[in-house]
Amino acid sequence: MTYPVSNETRFFDLPSVFALESGETLSGARVAYRTWGKPGREATLICHALTGSADADDWWGGLFGSSRSFDPEQDFIVASNVLGGCYGTTGPTSTKPGSDTWYGREFPSVTIRDMVNLQAELLDHLEVGSLRLVIGGSMGGMQALEWAAMFPDRVQGAVAIGVGANHSAWSVALSEAQRAAIWADPNFQDGDYRPGGGPGNGLAVARMIAMISYRGKDNFETRFGRTTIEDEFEVRSYLRHQGQKLVDRFDANTYLRLMDAMDSHDLARDRGDPAQVLADIKTAVLTVGISSDILYPASEVEAIAASLPNARYQMLHAPQGHDAFLIETANLDGIVSRFKNDLARGITPADDLSTDRGKGATWA
Amino acid sequence: MTYPVSNETRFFDLPSVFALESGETLSGARVAYRTWGKPGREATLICHALTGSADADDWWGGLFGSSRSFDPEQDFIVASNVLGGCYGTTGPTSTKPGSDTWYGREFPSVTIRDMVNLQAELLDHLEVGSLRLVIGGSMGGMQALEWAAMFPDRVQGAVAIGVGANHSAWSVALSEAQRAAIWADPNFQDGDYRPGGGPGNGLAVARMIAMISYRGKDNFETRFGRTTIEDEFEVRSYLRHQGQKLVDRFDANTYLRLMDAMDSHDLARDRGDPAQVLADIKTAVLTVGISSDILYPASEVEAIAASLPNARYQMLHAPQGHDAFLIETANLDGIVSRFKNDLARGITPADDLSTDRGKGATWA
Repeated sequence: MTYPVSNETRFFDLPSVFALESGETLSGARVAYRTWGKPGREATLICHALTGSADADDWWGGLFGSSRSFDPEQDFIVASNVLGGCYGTTGPTSTKPGSDTWYGREFPSVTIRDMVNLQAELLDHLEVGSLRLVIGGSMGGMQALEWAAMFPDRVQGAVAIGVGANHSAWSVALSEAQRAAIWADPNFQDGDYRPGGGPGNGLAVARMIAMISYRGKDNFETRFGRTTIEDEFEVRSYLRHQGQKLVDRFDANTYLRLMDAMDSHDLARDRGDPAQVLADIKTAVLTVGISSDILYPASEVEAIAASLPNARYQMLHAPQGHDAFLIETANLDGIVSRFKNDLARGITPADDLSTDRGKGATWA
Repeated sequence: MTYPVSNETRFFDLPSVFALESGETLSGARVAYRTWGKPGREATLICHALTGSADADDWWGGLFGSSRSFDPEQDFIVASNVLGGCYGTTGPTSTKPGSDTWYGREFPSVTIRDMVNLQAELLDHLEVGSLRLVIGGSMGGMQALEWAAMFPDRVQGAVAIGVGANHSAWSVALSEAQRAAIWADPNFQDGDYRPGGGPGNGLAVARMIAMISYRGKDNFETRFGRTTIEDEFEVRSYLRHQGQKLVDRFDANTYLRLMDAMDSHDLARDRGDPAQVLADIKTAVLTVGISSDILYPASEVEAIAASLPNARYQMLHAPQGHDAFLIETANLDGIVSRFKNDLARGITPADDLSTDRGKGATWA
């Protein structure tokens, strides 16, 4: 009962019970994933953002190709739908084991760390021992950072784009307004709606709220200004269209669970002093801030790199706000492939302190 | 059937039909207003923001008092509830003439210019010929700017705080998300709900969205961070509380009409080339930007002053975002009373070009 996935999507059914951070467990968990290139002991893992899927070549196609960040001729590349998602991996839209209905609202809360643990199970299954790179933007970047913190021996390099060391109060507030919009829709029925039904209006409002934070003021001004079409501001119909588009392809309970997971994001959570937690992450990390991002301002992304002992920071100059990591892929590919190539040549951020490309510094 | 008003509120019933920009007319329009000080031919007019009232000494008390911006010993001060409001002036919650029910959804669309025209009727009634100052923040600032454009011979000085020359696409988008939240609530019933009923959940969501734009990221981070109370992020309950507070004191149809009016704000609308429209406003104007405002960034507020021939700009340094004009009243009072005193002494922004206090410049 999950949403449609591509024909290329494969599935891994966990043989054992999967334990969540909360203490709850999932039986019969399934992971929907894609791979590109020849299987090997080393791989690149791509992590998707809030409403993404395992089809990374679809939503991040600009990073795939010969000599690009994701080169199937040179690398084994893996992407999976996250735990709690609705594109094939176990989540609220999955059938509950021993039942003929879906989990729906009964699906437990999950965290970014749970997502990473499930990805680790998939990599074990695929016999991937080490990640040349684990990479993602936004919620995907949270996963990449947690990979660096949770499995330092398994990660050669991590790239986190448009994300902070924790989810800010303003981001938590944006989640709450979106949650309230979904709750306010009577078709939500406390999450107990039927498959295919659900709080369409509330989910559309949630997406509209999110889009306002993804794009930002300058981008809306440039794109729309006060242009009207048939006496209506163009930005209004654009926003409603974006809301409806998500309703057609995404599940509300899933959206709520993944927002909860994002709200839980905090590298220091239950690990001690924040500065020390970051100082203890020895993994080579590249953080990429987006110049026009209002949700995760570039300064916040840069701050991660400045606090890690082995990290680089680079700015992606782009006008589209947070969403730029999905749009300005040519420039992003240059940034990422350079980092990946440097790592392959043994140049880590920590080795690079003699230049302006070192810890916390912008390298252009 | 309007919401409760203070005992001090007085009412002016227009003797004739009031014509709106749209071409529609209102019969029996009423204005709820307050005055302070001894009536005279000159006055200061205070314009309120989206959910404000005529009780300016309540929501802007910090600017009232001896030697302050609003000094009843020295000046005649007037404030009225805006056209379309729900605190006493004719709006959706008013009884429709010749009927025993309220306007509700049948209340026509109004613009900022309509609000100003109604205020002008009130001033005629009070026999006020000239405004020493017309002042407001946010939607109140839109009115102050329109006063300068519409009645240059009647305005000695205008102060607009936290507002642009027009409502930006991003602000229009924020309105649209709020509108969609109200529409999505089944209790909205297309605006045809009963007095006292209405889309409480939808209006609460709308207010939550607005609060996120009023305060901004840094302020939420400083105030709340990731603090939890009983395992819930404090910012979540804060936001819900803000939503509920508005539901208890404001009407949804009114909220929609006033958002429409704000969306209509554009000094150049139907007046020609924007730069020329601004260049033609000879009124002395002070625009005040708020350093932490994300809704109407200080740069946008400064741009107005730079485009007007007789304007000053000053920055209000404050961490609370857009809302700071209602909070940092001591500093704001200093800025406003200085401008007012300068005008009284014959020093206009245009006279002041030899110093750094002139056109478009920050004066500290």
